[in-house]
Amino acid sequence: VSLTRYAERYERELFENVIPFWLAHSLDREHGGYFTALDREGRVFDPRKYIWLNARQVWTFSKLYRETGRKPEYLEAARLGAAFLRRHAFDEQGRPWFSLTREGAPAFFQRKPYAGLFLMLGFDEFAKATGETWFEREAARLQRDFGRWTSEPALLGRPAFPALPPSSALADIYGTLCMAQQKGETEPQPAAVQALDAHWVEGRRLWLETAALDPARRLLYPENRLICVGSIFEITWLLLNAPQPHARTLDALEGALEFGWDREYGGFFYFQDVEGKPMLPLEGTMKLWWVHVEAIYALVRAYAATRETRWLRWLEVVDGYTFSHFPDRAHGEWFGYLDREGRPTTTLKGNNYKGCFHIPRALWWSAQAIRALP
Amino acid sequence: VSLTRYAERYERELFENVIPFWLAHSLDREHGGYFTALDREGRVFDPRKYIWLNARQVWTFSKLYRETGRKPEYLEAARLGAAFLRRHAFDEQGRPWFSLTREGAPAFFQRKPYAGLFLMLGFDEFAKATGETWFEREAARLQRDFGRWTSEPALLGRPAFPALPPSSALADIYGTLCMAQQKGETEPQPAAVQALDAHWVEGRRLWLETAALDPARRLLYPENRLICVGSIFEITWLLLNAPQPHARTLDALEGALEFGWDREYGGFFYFQDVEGKPMLPLEGTMKLWWVHVEAIYALVRAYAATRETRWLRWLEVVDGYTFSHFPDRAHGEWFGYLDREGRPTTTLKGNNYKGCFHIPRALWWSAQAIRALP
Repeated sequence: VSLTRYAERYERELFENVIPFWLAHSLDREHGGYFTALDREGRVFDPRKYIWLNARQVWTFSKLYRETGRKPEYLEAARLGAAFLRRHAFDEQGRPWFSLTREGAPAFFQRKPYAGLFLMLGFDEFAKATGETWFEREAARLQRDFGRWTSEPALLGRPAFPALPPSSALADIYGTLCMAQQKGETEPQPAAVQALDAHWVEGRRLWLETAALDPARRLLYPENRLICVGSIFEITWLLLNAPQPHARTLDALEGALEFGWDREYGGFFYFQDVEGKPMLPLEGTMKLWWVHVEAIYALVRAYAATRETRWLRWLEVVDGYTFSHFPDRAHGEWFGYLDREGRPTTTLKGNNYKGCFHIPRALWWSAQAIRALP
Repeated sequence: VSLTRYAERYERELFENVIPFWLAHSLDREHGGYFTALDREGRVFDPRKYIWLNARQVWTFSKLYRETGRKPEYLEAARLGAAFLRRHAFDEQGRPWFSLTREGAPAFFQRKPYAGLFLMLGFDEFAKATGETWFEREAARLQRDFGRWTSEPALLGRPAFPALPPSSALADIYGTLCMAQQKGETEPQPAAVQALDAHWVEGRRLWLETAALDPARRLLYPENRLICVGSIFEITWLLLNAPQPHARTLDALEGALEFGWDREYGGFFYFQDVEGKPMLPLEGTMKLWWVHVEAIYALVRAYAATRETRWLRWLEVVDGYTFSHFPDRAHGEWFGYLDREGRPTTTLKGNNYKGCFHIPRALWWSAQAIRALP
């Protein structure tokens, strides 16, 4: 079947264009950890070590080490990040910094729980790759703390504004589901799945990015009207891990594909207002690499689960846009940030939010899912 | 001279296209203060009251009241904001919030001193318009506190990261100079002017947006390489207030014009890396309204000070781009955010950072400066 050609292309892209770029430019063999702020050619334009991205890269290299023949260079790359993070990532209370200097001194603290999420994923995968129990225990500790940090943001120093409606973040649900999957649980946590209900927009078949929990003020503030279809794609494939996926999973996928696709220029918008009103983030109309590659994996998983051709038709469209716009054939890796018309607004390959994670994860898992089709 | 035609156009734009939009859509007569998150037609898409913009709008209406025939509607508009801010803008320690709910309850606190700067400007101008001494005293208190908050960020809850190089922010120098001008001082404060030296990039004739004060790490981090020509334009016209302007003033203006202008698509870039490296902010290549209108005023002032035709040639170019791209002839006010090619990426007229300030201030002062030419 022609799907095999997708799998071949994803593997080739991953092992010939993406991973070599990070192996060549990202490893800091002098101080440990990874540079992720890399320009088009791979030169470092910011020597800081960003925790989200260092932790995610540990995950990527540990995963590839375990699943692609235990190549020593992958393990060495994973260890370079894991050891650096073990030494420098946390404050005295076990809360992760957001960034460190090249040498490992604190450079910024973000009052959000997501550095902890990515450290949990990276450490757990590294523990699976090496059997080193410190990382397994620390991953378990971070999984518990992520729950505390999301339910009690004051633990991270986040002030409360009681006059605003309480809200639920899709990113927190994603984190909970993602860590459960990492631990090998096949059933998504019921509380996380139930939390999705407050995000559902009935007529549109979408999940809101940050759902206000007061019905009277549900869509009053622009942040509570935001849709990020990239987040919906991620939730979709996480839910498809369950033997009996949540009933709305495929509805949400189709809703996001239809709402998010730019019929004029192609590609998925980054952010949209569910009512079509203006938004506060300036990057809403841009086309971002991770949204597209997560859509590819969600579509592969939807097809694998249903064998319905509607997902293949969408896959052809999304795959076509993605591979004709994002990969850089001259210097490797992908561009990350396109304007609405599809032109890169910057040629950087990594920064404080783009690293070695979404592309390898989605390409590898998509290829694996296609190969596993009977 | 043909410059008079510029003045006529700026006055017409201000009083026929800009001010009417804000008077019609921004005033919250029910709860006080101003809505600034307005869509293309002027509909409110976020009911919060943003302190930066409420304070700035008090300044604008107080100023226009004082200088354009004391129209009661301008004073009433100014009072609507001033009274709301007096009641709701501050926490118990006199530190301003960043945003409030429509009714005036705290909605966000920003660990930066600039809400205080704009409150000082708005309150002082309102005191000048009304003679109400509470606002004059509070403006003086805010001027003192701005100095404390910039030199001791911990007072605003900003954590210190000693491993990063200490730095100087052009925005803090702008604030100091702007408040001195507001108080009628004709000589800029020597300490503020001297602080500019650390920002100077010799060969480029530019001031860095955030200058690292450690020579060994001066351009190590991308935020220390950032150029925002809009900030340089503002500093330029502030320095031109002095009878003997700082020697580098006109050099910096020319440097910013040459470095910031997009020779391919026209308009000024929002942010640039002084070494041409990638940047962390995603909006760097966009064209923003305030950068252009501040350039117009700086050019008018440079011409008034020197009578050199090089400034008129630049004024023609910048004025041409600005008036052919930003004003919305269908619904009033200006678009704020264009992509590099000059197309609006959003049609909103105001948000949490765009309000009724840069355009009125620059148009009014430019027209006045032209009218004052002998």
